[in-house]
Amino acid sequence: MEFVIIGGDAAGMSAASRAKRNQPELSVTVFEKTRDVSYSACGMPYNVADPNRPMDDLVVRRADVFRKKQGINLHTGHCVERIDPVHRQVLGTDMDGNRFQKAYDKLLIATGASAIVPDVEGKELPGVLVLKSLEDGRKLKDWIAGAPVKKAVIVGMGYVALEMAEALHAREIRVEMIKPRPVFLPWMPPDLVSVVREEVENHGVRLHPGKRVERIESAEKGLRLVTSDGVLIADMILIAVGVSPNSQVAAEAGLELGPQGAIAVDKYLKTSNPDIFAAGDCADAFHIVTGKKAYIPLALRANRAGWAVADTVCGNETALPGIAGTAVFKVFDLEVARTGLSAKEAEAAGFQPVTTTIQSRSRAHAHPGASTLWVHMVGDKASGRLLGVQMVGKEGAAHRIDAPAVALHAQMTVAEFYQCDLAYAPPFSPVWDPMLTAANQLLKEMT
Amino acid sequence: MEFVIIGGDAAGMSAASRAKRNQPELSVTVFEKTRDVSYSACGMPYNVADPNRPMDDLVVRRADVFRKKQGINLHTGHCVERIDPVHRQVLGTDMDGNRFQKAYDKLLIATGASAIVPDVEGKELPGVLVLKSLEDGRKLKDWIAGAPVKKAVIVGMGYVALEMAEALHAREIRVEMIKPRPVFLPWMPPDLVSVVREEVENHGVRLHPGKRVERIESAEKGLRLVTSDGVLIADMILIAVGVSPNSQVAAEAGLELGPQGAIAVDKYLKTSNPDIFAAGDCADAFHIVTGKKAYIPLALRANRAGWAVADTVCGNETALPGIAGTAVFKVFDLEVARTGLSAKEAEAAGFQPVTTTIQSRSRAHAHPGASTLWVHMVGDKASGRLLGVQMVGKEGAAHRIDAPAVALHAQMTVAEFYQCDLAYAPPFSPVWDPMLTAANQLLKEMT
Repeated sequence: MEFVIIGGDAAGMSAASRAKRNQPELSVTVFEKTRDVSYSACGMPYNVADPNRPMDDLVVRRADVFRKKQGINLHTGHCVERIDPVHRQVLGTDMDGNRFQKAYDKLLIATGASAIVPDVEGKELPGVLVLKSLEDGRKLKDWIAGAPVKKAVIVGMGYVALEMAEALHAREIRVEMIKPRPVFLPWMPPDLVSVVREEVENHGVRLHPGKRVERIESAEKGLRLVTSDGVLIADMILIAVGVSPNSQVAAEAGLELGPQGAIAVDKYLKTSNPDIFAAGDCADAFHIVTGKKAYIPLALRANRAGWAVADTVCGNETALPGIAGTAVFKVFDLEVARTGLSAKEAEAAGFQPVTTTIQSRSRAHAHPGASTLWVHMVGDKASGRLLGVQMVGKEGAAHRIDAPAVALHAQMTVAEFYQCDLAYAPPFSPVWDPMLTAANQLLKEMT
Repeated sequence: MEFVIIGGDAAGMSAASRAKRNQPELSVTVFEKTRDVSYSACGMPYNVADPNRPMDDLVVRRADVFRKKQGINLHTGHCVERIDPVHRQVLGTDMDGNRFQKAYDKLLIATGASAIVPDVEGKELPGVLVLKSLEDGRKLKDWIAGAPVKKAVIVGMGYVALEMAEALHAREIRVEMIKPRPVFLPWMPPDLVSVVREEVENHGVRLHPGKRVERIESAEKGLRLVTSDGVLIADMILIAVGVSPNSQVAAEAGLELGPQGAIAVDKYLKTSNPDIFAAGDCADAFHIVTGKKAYIPLALRANRAGWAVADTVCGNETALPGIAGTAVFKVFDLEVARTGLSAKEAEAAGFQPVTTTIQSRSRAHAHPGASTLWVHMVGDKASGRLLGVQMVGKEGAAHRIDAPAVALHAQMTVAEFYQCDLAYAPPFSPVWDPMLTAANQLLKEMT
């Protein structure tokens, strides 16, 4: 049997490796359009922060290991341009311009996502960069070293944008951030937003929410970013406004698409064609809180989905129940974490959201070194279910979010979550963990 | 109605405060035998570590606040010696030797636990100390300041003993620890035990497991602890071999006792007498994994049980499902955490435990500052259920344990826990959280 995979990053290489481990005699072929496979894209901002670390530190496993040790037919520099589902083959062109084609029995599309670049004049100018692929990372780091960059503008204020603000700040670059929408982190309640915003601004980052990018121009030294309200000058402009799924090749093959144009898959990661799977940042997923489709491209899901497809292809049908949208990021000295739905998302999904926000301490009464932990919790008035949690704090937010994530998978009510026996010791929390305090408060609001 | 409470620490004062908040007209009377109420006993080792902090920093709320602001009839220095369930009254003696008695409609026994002191010769000598009450803490701190203490022996190696080893080490006291049983932390698998043991020994603490205390003698300077294998010299001996529930007054009133002599209570915290409740370290609880009774005296349960009793007494019947045995402690630079059952406990409870131990990293591939995280996981072969998790690491163990704790409350299988969408960002974990890696490994062992 021929198992062919388009895309050699998290989902693709996870699937390839696991398939060969499951069934060493299986023929596994991967086509990756870049020269990089299996690297930690999420680690790029932290690598940028350190001028002494080569970007290739982020490579988890090198191509020749996959080829020689694992026996995977890995073709880098090979771009698949067309899937022919009738004749079950993929067709494309390699970096040298040679055409290739390959027949499959089972196909996995793991083409990932691309950085969205708004269609503004000047977006192709040198110094206007994105950060999605490892090659993007190399270019960005080279640009910083070469320019040299003293001042950067980041277009976008999502988590990658914020991680990059921290990274550039660590490189002693003055950072300004701009986005068209007026709200800083729209999925967050205002009380938590202001904590994060203050942290960012306290590190000298200037925020310009509510300003549109009109065009980018070359300046005498560097670049001019003309906005709907004034001009920003920079040696580098990073576009970090989000990603969109690389689903064109799937769409052209007639496969169904889901939210935000991601490839629609069932719980077995199967597309609308029974021989074609999709996994990773190009595919959608079921959200375990709403039961509906969602596009939340994150690394764990990509890896998990790759494994599941490999198991199914090898005869052990494996379903994934879905995602909770659990995510965490660090920005300067803050940990920002979320799982499940925000109030707005809950309302859109047909729930009757009730929310509370509490402030608690990261350590016990009288224990030195404590800081404030903000917990925002969302419940459903009709069913009593826990729907989502968001947290911000200098310590204890990142790992705490996993507990409500598990509660979401278990479809717990807020009352049930409140009864959970969570850990307590003075260096790590108050007796009543901040999450329990939030649950108790939310229960009052819900009755 | 008269609501009378015996004991003025976590469970007792939580109940008193909440009852008055629920029903300000209710008459609430508390008898506390010491002069201290409402203090953070768990904070004592950390207070001992700092010579400049008064022990009374640990008082959460002072007696006159309870009396004047909350209207609670709080009698400190009042020891209840007898419960008369027939005439529904309590009888006792105050610190001045005056007898008192008080009638109740509803009674809460919240007498806590006492430090176990083995019956060895010399246990009453000056410098032989325990650490349970705030008064114990004051005495211990005074002794360290006065002696002065250069060398201490701790009898016992449980979590309080280990927290105190760290505290005394911070005071530049040389510490030796001794216990009769040969295994360092018997509820832990050997691979995790050796990590903790190494951490303790690397800080110069000498461990003597498998040695019995024969007697304690006065030496020319300090104390001599004669063991089954040699003599230890010290300026101070701390007995920290565990606690036993203060259930004598309940037993004498004919109330049923549970495991380890704790007062037996149902899910409403009711004892075998329908007008008498028990809560906190004197009472037992249902274990949510086994469904059976357990005695695991910890602070969160005490507070929670106090609140539940107050709600029930005020007419809002409140049941507590039970405890998961979630606990965490810090010892030097290590976080040690557990929830649910160890393999031995699982076997004793009739499960077919299967276990795995994995080593993972606290941060992502190539992220600086990562350390090793050990995860031990226990599942049931027959049902597939997750039964317990233990973790040790320099960072990320303490808060991570809450996720499997929630999974235990939800009676999740290992396979279901493995599907949970946990948080990932390079500063906080690998893509596959160490708990998911452990679950994946355990699933392989279980099939």
